[in-house]
Amino acid sequence: MERVDSKTVYEGKIATVRVETFRHADGSETEREVVAHPGAVAILAHDDERIYLVRQPREAVNEESLLELPAGKLDVDGESPLECAQRELAEEVGKAASDWRELKRFYTSPGFAQEEVTVFVATGLRDESRDAGEEERIEIVPWPLAEIDGAIEECRDAKSLVGLQLLRELLDG
Amino acid sequence: MERVDSKTVYEGKIATVRVETFRHADGSETEREVVAHPGAVAILAHDDERIYLVRQPREAVNEESLLELPAGKLDVDGESPLECAQRELAEEVGKAASDWRELKRFYTSPGFAQEEVTVFVATGLRDESRDAGEEERIEIVPWPLAEIDGAIEECRDAKSLVGLQLLRELLDG
Repeated sequence: MERVDSKTVYEGKIATVRVETFRHADGSETEREVVAHPGAVAILAHDDERIYLVRQPREAVNEESLLELPAGKLDVDGESPLECAQRELAEEVGKAASDWRELKRFYTSPGFAQEEVTVFVATGLRDESRDAGEEERIEIVPWPLAEIDGAIEECRDAKSLVGLQLLRELLDG
Repeated sequence: MERVDSKTVYEGKIATVRVETFRHADGSETEREVVAHPGAVAILAHDDERIYLVRQPREAVNEESLLELPAGKLDVDGESPLECAQRELAEEVGKAASDWRELKRFYTSPGFAQEEVTVFVATGLRDESRDAGEEERIEIVPWPLAEIDGAIEECRDAKSLVGLQLLRELLDG
């Protein structure tokens, strides 16, 4: 199956909807509607004692304040997932890391959205200057690694839940 | 903060985008754009030996065929999450369950979408008639419970990853 056309039918501040046309091998065509997304990254940044989480109000879910992994969209042209993760960790948490490891890629809601998240583990942390724009919006939450179960209990964000559960498995293994 | 207006700015087959207007206590107003979603359910249906997964091609992610939990949208008026889960388990997998337990609620992508998923554990399984319409589209995958790690390894769908990891924890505990 080959994509022969892609039309943007709605473009807003946070959501873009496209209708894509595909041609099958027999020449017949199908249309499909998707919520477009450039992809995202999420970061499990930890040392021996703490994992650095964030808390922020989320407009899409009634301003509920959610405990999450530091994360961000691949919205800079030509930036790789790893570069994006390094930028987001500095901007949101004010940290750089010497060791980066890709842990898992998955789709957040493949029933309607393109979004794919890549989760990284970042260790060998050191302080960096934080993005001033993020300081008001995002609270840094240094969480004791020994109490990671409590973070999983409180967390209601899918990408963060997947990451925290994988990290618990890694630490237990 | 109080919602004073909600306008549908795009309504398609799978995606609806709304712009909502909120009034703060001081009288000022804010607009926010959200991908609307009625919510969804996902089901960990298992007996002593197998968990019943499904595999289906997902249009939004390039027709990739994904290993997932049986799941569905809350798209029937007045239906509770539990009733929806019972209906979806019958339709997709052809099973009914005598014991249902709510395990976790979370948002799939709170950066832009309203979707909240409720994950249930369903046990005490018996056969039901399956929805004929789903048979072509969805493959039932009975997966050995003892090999749940392999399902987590293969799975690339966030809600299913969260559910499978929680179930592994339950079974190990």
